[in-house]
Amino acid sequence: MEKVSVLAPATVANMVCGFDILGFALEEPNDSMTVRIIKERKIEIINRDDFDLPTVAKKNVAGVALLAMLEKIDENIGFEIETTKKIKPGSGIGSSAASAAGAVVAANHLLDKRFTELDLIEFAMSGEELASGSKHADNVAPCVLGGVTLVRSNDPLDVIKLDFPELFVTIVHPQIEVKTSDAREILKQQILLKNAIRQWGNIAGLVAGLMKKDYELISRSLEDRIIEPTRSILIPKFDQIKTESKQAGALGGGISGSGPSIFMLSQTEETAQKVEGVMRQNYQNIELDFNTYVTKINSNGVTIV
Amino acid sequence: MEKVSVLAPATVANMVCGFDILGFALEEPNDSMTVRIIKERKIEIINRDDFDLPTVAKKNVAGVALLAMLEKIDENIGFEIETTKKIKPGSGIGSSAASAAGAVVAANHLLDKRFTELDLIEFAMSGEELASGSKHADNVAPCVLGGVTLVRSNDPLDVIKLDFPELFVTIVHPQIEVKTSDAREILKQQILLKNAIRQWGNIAGLVAGLMKKDYELISRSLEDRIIEPTRSILIPKFDQIKTESKQAGALGGGISGSGPSIFMLSQTEETAQKVEGVMRQNYQNIELDFNTYVTKINSNGVTIV
Repeated sequence: MEKVSVLAPATVANMVCGFDILGFALEEPNDSMTVRIIKERKIEIINRDDFDLPTVAKKNVAGVALLAMLEKIDENIGFEIETTKKIKPGSGIGSSAASAAGAVVAANHLLDKRFTELDLIEFAMSGEELASGSKHADNVAPCVLGGVTLVRSNDPLDVIKLDFPELFVTIVHPQIEVKTSDAREILKQQILLKNAIRQWGNIAGLVAGLMKKDYELISRSLEDRIIEPTRSILIPKFDQIKTESKQAGALGGGISGSGPSIFMLSQTEETAQKVEGVMRQNYQNIELDFNTYVTKINSNGVTIV
Repeated sequence: MEKVSVLAPATVANMVCGFDILGFALEEPNDSMTVRIIKERKIEIINRDDFDLPTVAKKNVAGVALLAMLEKIDENIGFEIETTKKIKPGSGIGSSAASAAGAVVAANHLLDKRFTELDLIEFAMSGEELASGSKHADNVAPCVLGGVTLVRSNDPLDVIKLDFPELFVTIVHPQIEVKTSDAREILKQQILLKNAIRQWGNIAGLVAGLMKKDYELISRSLEDRIIEPTRSILIPKFDQIKTESKQAGALGGGISGSGPSIFMLSQTEETAQKVEGVMRQNYQNIELDFNTYVTKINSNGVTIV
């Protein structure tokens, strides 16, 4: 096989109380990528969209991920990637992760799957490092593996897939810019032990709720007293959207990644659509441009098409 | 029915990374208690052991728990409790929790189970407040419910039973005194966010490992970078016992409650016995008196005999 096309899904990291450790993949939106093997040790990048992303491999997220893979390959080969991005860079739903993870999963398919999924996550993390300055796995892990993933540890990398019940996801992306680096800088480096205890109770509750498929427990556990109070001030109407979404029946939700997108989880599609209405109404009222998605948690991760 | 006898098990709180939220019940040791209904609104206490615990209800852990229950009872009744404690007070394996939980479970049995398990945990928490100054549920919850329990939140109380695989437990109780209040005082009230993130990754991993019955994951997740480094200095030979126990095959372990007991989890009884040998050897070497137990996680909690 000389070329393969994949769909790489958007992902939500920092699942409320699961800051830096929990993430999940979405059914929509997806980036489309086609990867070909070439007979030269280099990465060629072709962008078929309007995002004006770099085409020099070392400056491109997918390029850097493939270069990390190429370091572990002895043969005289390289890759050409042709990308049509649908996941807007900077939206907070794993745009860079989709580029990095999609590229390495596709390339591995062309190499008869010589690398493990954990290897692929590690390669993709190099792309994340270029995008955000930190080598984190909480978007690339669910992008590669699908479903809900736990990154127990970054070093050594330890990723666990968690069982979960059917969950509908409503996303709103307000068209403002929140840089990941800024969102990181405003976080306090020290936190109160009592807040940390509350947080780990919620994380344990969320993991147990997902695995038991207990929607009530999931809902009670979707609480973040550490990160959200600081970061949410960067996102217009955050508190109001969250409160009204829960009134509309959402189980809960919060900031997607480092924002500015907000996500809400619901048990039914009907509720997820009501939540979309809440989001639309709030941003229309203040005349802020936005996109919304009503979708589900995607069990498969990057898929070959 | 006018009287009932129960066995109330020892419990381990603060399950390594699960500080203040995770706990489990042991098959051994147990306190024996017999509770009778009396025709007067008072609590009478008879101690059939040598621990010299108070017999005035308001100063006795079981007495306070029963007084809390009595507040929710309209009839003109009270209880007489006769206790033979086997769980040494101050050992760090839930001695006060066994007194409080045993008393209220027995009394509830005599009242045809008019109270829920969550009610009983709340009553028993009043006893814990007398014993340690804080109204915590991480020992009384597993004592009442059995198995491994998560206290997601103390206020409002939210307790979840977690599935778990067969686990053997080795306990050593070095005969030194560590007051719960002292063990609390030495904790730092502020912690580093990066350590908290590591901790919540481990807690999520431990909950997932228990529910998936994945011994490897349980073992990797039994890590505490926040509480243990501070508290373990109060316990002689802690680091050496932990290291050698893991070398002997233990999955991991740590301080039981606020100490001084140390617990280790193993997949087989044979390993749990090797671990007991490690513990004995270490304390014999420094001529420190100690007790050991090789037991299992108890699925039932307080049992009627």
